[in-house]
Amino acid sequence: MGSNQIQAPKGTRDLYPADAAKRRFVTEAWRKVSVRHGFDEIDGPTFEHLALYTVKSGEGIVSELFSFRREGGEQDYALRPEFTPTLARMFAARAGALPRPTKWFMTGPFFRAERPQRGRLREFLQWNVDVLGDPSPQADAEVIACCVALLRDLGFTPEHLRVKVNHRDALAKWLVARGVEAPRHADLFKLLDQRGKLPPDQFVAGLAAFGFNAQQAEVFIKGVIRVEIPPGATSVEVAGERVTREQLGVQDHPEEPADLTFFSDAVRPLAVALANAGVLDWVDFDLSIVRGLAYYTGMVFEVHEATGAERAVAGGGRYDNLVELFGGPPTPAVGFGMGDVVLTLIMQDKGLMPDETGMLERAGMRPDVFVISNGVPEAEAQLHPLVASFRAAGLHARHTSKATRNVGKLLKEAGDCRARHAVIIESGRSCTIKDMGTGEQRQLPLDQALGTLTTPR
Amino acid sequence: MGSNQIQAPKGTRDLYPADAAKRRFVTEAWRKVSVRHGFDEIDGPTFEHLALYTVKSGEGIVSELFSFRREGGEQDYALRPEFTPTLARMFAARAGALPRPTKWFMTGPFFRAERPQRGRLREFLQWNVDVLGDPSPQADAEVIACCVALLRDLGFTPEHLRVKVNHRDALAKWLVARGVEAPRHADLFKLLDQRGKLPPDQFVAGLAAFGFNAQQAEVFIKGVIRVEIPPGATSVEVAGERVTREQLGVQDHPEEPADLTFFSDAVRPLAVALANAGVLDWVDFDLSIVRGLAYYTGMVFEVHEATGAERAVAGGGRYDNLVELFGGPPTPAVGFGMGDVVLTLIMQDKGLMPDETGMLERAGMRPDVFVISNGVPEAEAQLHPLVASFRAAGLHARHTSKATRNVGKLLKEAGDCRARHAVIIESGRSCTIKDMGTGEQRQLPLDQALGTLTTPR
Repeated sequence: MGSNQIQAPKGTRDLYPADAAKRRFVTEAWRKVSVRHGFDEIDGPTFEHLALYTVKSGEGIVSELFSFRREGGEQDYALRPEFTPTLARMFAARAGALPRPTKWFMTGPFFRAERPQRGRLREFLQWNVDVLGDPSPQADAEVIACCVALLRDLGFTPEHLRVKVNHRDALAKWLVARGVEAPRHADLFKLLDQRGKLPPDQFVAGLAAFGFNAQQAEVFIKGVIRVEIPPGATSVEVAGERVTREQLGVQDHPEEPADLTFFSDAVRPLAVALANAGVLDWVDFDLSIVRGLAYYTGMVFEVHEATGAERAVAGGGRYDNLVELFGGPPTPAVGFGMGDVVLTLIMQDKGLMPDETGMLERAGMRPDVFVISNGVPEAEAQLHPLVASFRAAGLHARHTSKATRNVGKLLKEAGDCRARHAVIIESGRSCTIKDMGTGEQRQLPLDQALGTLTTPR
Repeated sequence: MGSNQIQAPKGTRDLYPADAAKRRFVTEAWRKVSVRHGFDEIDGPTFEHLALYTVKSGEGIVSELFSFRREGGEQDYALRPEFTPTLARMFAARAGALPRPTKWFMTGPFFRAERPQRGRLREFLQWNVDVLGDPSPQADAEVIACCVALLRDLGFTPEHLRVKVNHRDALAKWLVARGVEAPRHADLFKLLDQRGKLPPDQFVAGLAAFGFNAQQAEVFIKGVIRVEIPPGATSVEVAGERVTREQLGVQDHPEEPADLTFFSDAVRPLAVALANAGVLDWVDFDLSIVRGLAYYTGMVFEVHEATGAERAVAGGGRYDNLVELFGGPPTPAVGFGMGDVVLTLIMQDKGLMPDETGMLERAGMRPDVFVISNGVPEAEAQLHPLVASFRAAGLHARHTSKATRNVGKLLKEAGDCRARHAVIIESGRSCTIKDMGTGEQRQLPLDQALGTLTTPR
């Protein structure tokens, strides 16, 4: 490879300012919503010992690792493909000193050596949110509510995105009722999680081995094995079969919100907690959601575009055994991860990504002041010192890098970069401040310019 | 390695909340000062093709790379040890469409496979600030001023930290005057940059090869080959020799600030620009600063603790040939990098790292409201919905995770987490809002709690 043809590695991104601003917009939203929900920020290493992932992440992840060994070294490392093992290791290491529950979030880069495609890169950002030490459905609801709050903050509605919730117990119960016994569930879960990746005929053949006929397989393929029981309805279709509320364990509870839709004892307490958290309108209970990772033990969920387009926006669930596996005490835990790639694609599709001007506003990147010299030597000598004094006072100050001293052209440049004020230095002693919003301008002594712009009016 | 004994890799960090808050404090300061100085944020991949670094970074960096190759793959990759090659590649790729100057900053993780020690980890964060397309000393001064503004923002003074500036031309001129001819300079620069890493006797032996005697070597070892010409003084000691202002090319310029200290034609225009930017009081011109990277072409600088303790806090310089090397047009460029490790150590040593309370204030992590139920069933039923409604309105809302409903104990918990207000739900209809700062409290209908806390007073 010639030294002047080096590209970014396949599946990674060069983020120029417009794209970096979009990413910053997303990461700031992640951080704000996490703090608002009482989560504390943490982080771990970008690479870990390879063994951290081979222990319990599941074959899917291990086959996609960027792993490496230093020349002459004895340790195998891997770029982190997910955060949960690091989090479990960190909690285990200080479990005695940490509160119950411990509520943690982080954002950072993650890596998977997959074939890059739409919505899937080899390096991406991920937001992770976890509650450790609380076994209750309230904790399950808390992480889902935090996830939904982020979606709301970005402008999404329940018409754009659906939170698809399942419970491995509920799925297991339904499968046993269908004649698929417990020892075969792990293999079926693995198959269901591959739905998007396998050729359809291979998926159908896989399901046939579990006793599902072609028509029943169809509902798995379309992902419509979804259970919605409208208020007042007495039965629903599940995998092509009519199932009554009673068969699903649904009973009327007058004290619970009227629009509750739920399908089993395993999920009902979660549905109540989700209703209390004000997010039930985003949720579908969906028996086909299983998640690929081996360590999930109870509730699992994914966020999907409502029409089923695109990969999952977020996914997570309960993993009550993982902390113990890393040497900590038995610790119930629940959490999720959300990547920036699919999220950003859908934001753009729905018109929810602010335009450049909106982005500048939100990111606090609009200059407070654009300083102009009219070109006379006394004014010229004051240009850089005045810019420096504005910046030292905490203002975002800019000046032209062009040679021109045509004040009209420079005022246009001030407007183009969305500066709030322009200061035109007219001599060593005098300047004019122009409010770029209202057009109002007034002349004043140069030594009053700093005080005028730093004093709130 | 047993699955329950997995540690973080040597030289990396697990950041629990208190440490993550410190890091966030530093990265937010980096970002704010960059924006204020008119820099746009960018980012590149965390790993790059290995060739990007073998081309021009210099032997020092290449020997410290974490490099790897995917099993069965054909590409060699490396975790990024520095940002400048990525930046040069990115500028070269879009040079035709980018403005002159282009002002970019980024923050992110970087990696060096060195032996971990105080101030030096294998994974660290780094802030990079660069101006491309401006050959003037004004651009040199602009990046140094941005660096100094960050130090000021964090509470440092020129008594804590010094910006040590050199110019490879100035050093070359001085070396030629000492009898060390140009073809030998590259080797001497390499030796000078190794000062902190080589055993003293090896360093002295190295200098002897360039004609420096033991006494002269001493001044390199102590790093006191620094030139300060106080106003009015006519000569200074340089490397054990008396040198006059005239010999150094220093002349009196009444129109320049009176406290200018400079030592050669190469540095004088930079000194004027630094004075205009208001940062000259932080600067020492120091002939011993050379920087290890091979690509620097003019001004170079490092920020050091004033007594010489610790490694450099930041370092950078001018690299006018690098963009062209990566296939772009000839492009003057200047910039610097600052890591978080040494910076954080010195902040803590000088008492400049905010304590936990101060950190919560600054990071916006103080809860706006702590919601308490007095335990009666009607109040209890409202607890989670009220917390949810506060969060939906953008407030940072918390509640206890303890079983107790003793209002006194829960008010203490609200105070411990520094909440601004407590809301005590007393029934299904009524609550008391307490201002945790003033102690003032008033009872009001429950359905007015949200409006009361979200309306600015």
